[in-house]
Amino acid sequence: MTASDRSPHSHARAAILSCGDELALGETLDTNSQYLARQLADLGIETVEHVTVGDDLHATAEAFTRLSTRADLVIATGGLGPTADDLTRQALALAMKDELVEDPFALEEIRAWFTGRGRVFSEMNRVQALRPSRGRCLPNPHGTAPGLAARLGSADVYCLPGPPREMKPMFESRVVPELAPPAGARVRTRILGTVGLGESQVAQSLGELMQRDRLERGLVQVGTTASGGIVACRARVRGGEDQLDEAAAIIRTRLGAAVFAEAHHDLPRAIVERLSSRGETVATAESCTGGLLAGAITAIPGSSACFHAGWTCYSNAIKSSQLGVPEALFASVGAVSREVAGAMARGALERAGGHWALSVTGIAGPEGGTEQKPVGTVYIGLASRAGALDVRRFAMIGTRADVRAWSVTAALAMLHLHTAGAPEMRLLRQTEG
Amino acid sequence: MTASDRSPHSHARAAILSCGDELALGETLDTNSQYLARQLADLGIETVEHVTVGDDLHATAEAFTRLSTRADLVIATGGLGPTADDLTRQALALAMKDELVEDPFALEEIRAWFTGRGRVFSEMNRVQALRPSRGRCLPNPHGTAPGLAARLGSADVYCLPGPPREMKPMFESRVVPELAPPAGARVRTRILGTVGLGESQVAQSLGELMQRDRLERGLVQVGTTASGGIVACRARVRGGEDQLDEAAAIIRTRLGAAVFAEAHHDLPRAIVERLSSRGETVATAESCTGGLLAGAITAIPGSSACFHAGWTCYSNAIKSSQLGVPEALFASVGAVSREVAGAMARGALERAGGHWALSVTGIAGPEGGTEQKPVGTVYIGLASRAGALDVRRFAMIGTRADVRAWSVTAALAMLHLHTAGAPEMRLLRQTEG
Repeated sequence: MTASDRSPHSHARAAILSCGDELALGETLDTNSQYLARQLADLGIETVEHVTVGDDLHATAEAFTRLSTRADLVIATGGLGPTADDLTRQALALAMKDELVEDPFALEEIRAWFTGRGRVFSEMNRVQALRPSRGRCLPNPHGTAPGLAARLGSADVYCLPGPPREMKPMFESRVVPELAPPAGARVRTRILGTVGLGESQVAQSLGELMQRDRLERGLVQVGTTASGGIVACRARVRGGEDQLDEAAAIIRTRLGAAVFAEAHHDLPRAIVERLSSRGETVATAESCTGGLLAGAITAIPGSSACFHAGWTCYSNAIKSSQLGVPEALFASVGAVSREVAGAMARGALERAGGHWALSVTGIAGPEGGTEQKPVGTVYIGLASRAGALDVRRFAMIGTRADVRAWSVTAALAMLHLHTAGAPEMRLLRQTEG
Repeated sequence: MTASDRSPHSHARAAILSCGDELALGETLDTNSQYLARQLADLGIETVEHVTVGDDLHATAEAFTRLSTRADLVIATGGLGPTADDLTRQALALAMKDELVEDPFALEEIRAWFTGRGRVFSEMNRVQALRPSRGRCLPNPHGTAPGLAARLGSADVYCLPGPPREMKPMFESRVVPELAPPAGARVRTRILGTVGLGESQVAQSLGELMQRDRLERGLVQVGTTASGGIVACRARVRGGEDQLDEAAAIIRTRLGAAVFAEAHHDLPRAIVERLSSRGETVATAESCTGGLLAGAITAIPGSSACFHAGWTCYSNAIKSSQLGVPEALFASVGAVSREVAGAMARGALERAGGHWALSVTGIAGPEGGTEQKPVGTVYIGLASRAGALDVRRFAMIGTRADVRAWSVTAALAMLHLHTAGAPEMRLLRQTEG
């Protein structure tokens, strides 16, 4: 069977199937399904259901069968390895009422994979060359597991390897070219990233744009998703880019400086792009975030243009020796204070040079809180070469990881406001003191 | 209906249902399902399926109905908010062929939630007090959405709010006490964390322990899961802790110093616990990991006992000014070199004091690779107060994020080996040069 044998039907509704005990039992976090759903959405294909099943032949076969009736495209990941608990091949054949046959080309590819790495082909890997007799194998340049493609009922089924490093290139190079999004049904999406407002504040400002029947009426419909201090506004329309442009302009008018990007909701990326385009740099001085603020900035390719130096100063002695924070402050106002946050930011700016410095000092928990400064109390400082010093207190909520993540977002949000000409805007969870 | 009305049946098989367009369309990563599956596994309840559906009343109701036949416990998250796309309440009632009624106690609790925060109760939130007439509400001290509990066919169904900060406390305080894991079927699990070996090397060493019929035969059965350089070995048995102790001893004998923990697979935690118990400290000097190594260490509560200082030195000038790396090295051997990694580690150790320092310098990509030093080339250095200097070259694979994450793990793995008395052990992806 070759690509040209595929029925010329379109893919409007997709279902995603993840296979593996480690996923079903919660030992591993499934990130493949989100990746696939997002890629499909960008192509105009709606994912209607995700399913995860353990290493169970009949449960997997039943899932294939059921999903092939709910969707016209089924993409499965995992269970293509060489061991006894890799059952996706058999499950697909069972659902198709087909038998497994050895694919000589796939077998040759697997042998070559081992040879190319100076390793000996193991007979154990031979099973990976099996495919349903009415299916075909998809080459895998990044591992030993070929993918599978087949027709099941009225659905096209693709099986991809579980490791994201193998799955993503195979999806992009082998599956995407074969997909047929229904042209008329194509939904265009634009994501605007906002920070500093709660989801309900955003929803109130967006008002009628969020009504759920707008998409069907040919209008732009906006949905919101809040995560870690960022509220992403998804504008969707069955129409042209011009309608999205208009909607973006309306959203920006209503939400003002809270909008930090009009094409994504990645705040570090927005900061890196803005600073780089202005030829400016930022340094970081971190206590409770412990390097995560620098880590978030440097996650962005090209961040070396705008980020040169960061300090993680977990002890008072290091805050003084490395950033010049006056030791007397620790006794008088404490390490978690407006004054120390200010001194950290100024110290980092002096030592790093450049245009901006951000500092974070707070109590991430679970220990260390007091009545005056409970867990979640965080001071964030911003110092600029132009002489600005802005220090804010926040009351963060949640676990140690939550407090740290929100603090990273709040620090970047302060830099966003200062570089967007709105330094007076108050941020969510900002408090007095 | 009260807790005592529940049928006295046991919960052997669970299913997890996640509700929301943002999940189905891949805009948000679902972490709730993993959390729940893992908690249930610890209690001896096996999760057989996870399902995610969008904001679709009939699809959600059908999922409730189908899962209630596959499992005797169904836990749903999301879709309990106040807006038109929050449909879990209606879907559960539809599946139960029941009607929704207003719960006066839940309504009072929602009002009190607003009042307690100095906010005005909105009539929009009134819908959150609805429940199936044959169900009950579960209090939510962390938000406005009460949970729901009901019986559907022969399954117990719980509906929890989507935000993890509200979902987790409700699960732990309201659901767990009502769960009845089948005593005889209880599977005990122990996780051993290993680093430095590939999954196939681990599998080869574990041999017969990994046979898939062992659990049913009353023997310890081991499964492995690889992620980001860590291979977790899950030993499971229907039996006592003594069998797990024996199995752990065998695994340790076979895998040697690759085992860094016998109760979890969190390498930063193992490092923080070991250093703290020895009264030792570690400092970090990072280039390509950009703060993530310090961030991984400081993610662990109590890490301030063993971590005081970290530097993120993204530019050569900062490497010299802050850590004393000789400037001549950048011209002679380059910033990504054995010599610079060594100088960074020594410089951090001198400035931070303490016992150990780790350094990372490499090419995370996507730009910056050369023929001699392609993307993924990373040098990691370890310096000790006792005078050791160990610098290793690695060839990491994958995206920028992969290279950075693997580098953090490799640096911690080197410290693990040195503190575990096995500094000679070679690590995965270590290479010559």
